Amino acid sequence: MDSTLLVAIGAAIAVLTGIGAGLGISLATGKAADAIARQPEADGKIRTTLLIGCALAEATAIYGFVIALLIVLLLK
Amino acid sequence: MDSTLLVAIGAAIAVLTGIGAGLGISLATGKAADAIARQPEADGKIRTTLLIGCALAEATAIYGFVIALLIVLLLK
Amino acid sequence: MDSTLLVAIGAAIAVLTGIGAGLGISLATGKAADAIARQPEADGKIRTTLLIGCALAEATAIYGFVIALLIVLLLK
Repeated sequence: MDSTLLVAIGAAIAVLTGIGAGLGISLATGKAADAIARQPEADGKIRTTLLIGCALAEATAIYGFVIALLIVLLLK
Repeated sequence: MDSTLLVAIGAAIAVLTGIGAGLGISLATGKAADAIARQPEADGKIRTTLLIGCALAEATAIYGFVIALLIVLLLK
Repeated sequence: MDSTLLVAIGAAIAVLTGIGAGLGISLATGKAADAIARQPEADGKIRTTLLIGCALAEATAIYGFVIALLIVLLLK
């Protein structure tokens, strides 16, 4: 059995990490839209907070993407 | 057993990453519609916030798409 | 059976750790946006608290990322 047999499956599972960030960032965005409707004049502060949080969450998706890239490029 | 045997399954699993973003962006859009109904004059601010958040969430789906493409093109 | 057969699968499962952080950080960000809408003048305090919590949550994703990197680079 070839050692590269499961490379495609491995890369695929790694990039699935993005599901958490994709769902979470959207939920945060929905909450932020709610928050702006309640305090439209605080939109700058809310948007800054949203960006900080989403950048950190996006990073987790990028970790999965990088590992998937490494798996495809190094292990094939 | 051929090393490319599982390439199709791998690419398919990779692109499933888009489930999180697809569901999440829709929920965020729903919340934003609610928010605009509550504060119609804040629609520009809410739309800007929605776009920022959804762009970040969409990126996670693109990661899955890119990995699926790489799997199909490089590992076949 | 080759000992490197499951390296890709192993690395992929390791980086899935980021799902928890990606989802959790986003939920915290949504709550913080809510909190700023309720007390816009406390935005600095809320953002600092968000950053502390999210840094700790992000660390769990980094653990998964580092282990996945080590698996790909050392075990291939």
